[in-house]
Amino acid sequence: MSHRVEIRYCTQCRWLLRAAWMAQELLTTFDSELSELALQPGTGGIFEVSADGVLVWSRKERGRFPEITELKQLVRDVIAPERDLGHIDRKPSPQS
Amino acid sequence: MSHRVEIRYCTQCRWLLRAAWMAQELLTTFDSELSELALQPGTGGIFEVSADGVLVWSRKERGRFPEITELKQLVRDVIAPERDLGHIDRKPSPQS
Repeated sequence: MSHRVEIRYCTQCRWLLRAAWMAQELLTTFDSELSELALQPGTGGIFEVSADGVLVWSRKERGRFPEITELKQLVRDVIAPERDLGHIDRKPSPQS
Repeated sequence: MSHRVEIRYCTQCRWLLRAAWMAQELLTTFDSELSELALQPGTGGIFEVSADGVLVWSRKERGRFPEITELKQLVRDVIAPERDLGHIDRKPSPQS
């Protein structure tokens, strides 16, 4: 219940909508694990997601946005590694 | 650019959607003032908005949800008191 996720997005790129959508997906899945999810306006094409200070996604490094299922797995691996995400964990993840 | 807003909402009441909507409205209006907007899952009918640690809305105290325009004014009064919100400031605010 004391975990924190951050999503930093580029306002110039108008990525608020997708950041807010991912925020809601994560808050719905991890509502008992997260104490807060912070949306952080940024610039310069940034799209990064961190869980408890660990960078789990950088669009600059990966060259793309995450699938929502792989993002949940990456966040889960940091904040609740023992947790089974159900059908998400049955499907192979996209290449990461 | 270093201001922080928190929205704490009751997950049992399913208020994530309206919390996330208000988050996006505030992030759009204050994209150059906010360093982050934190969505915080809560319980027990809570719906509270704080700006820089100052509680600007409590549903328990006010007995209702804020209009989005009055919420922007209340947040503005804390994080950017000199800022004119345009047409929002021309209309009379609902009773607060």
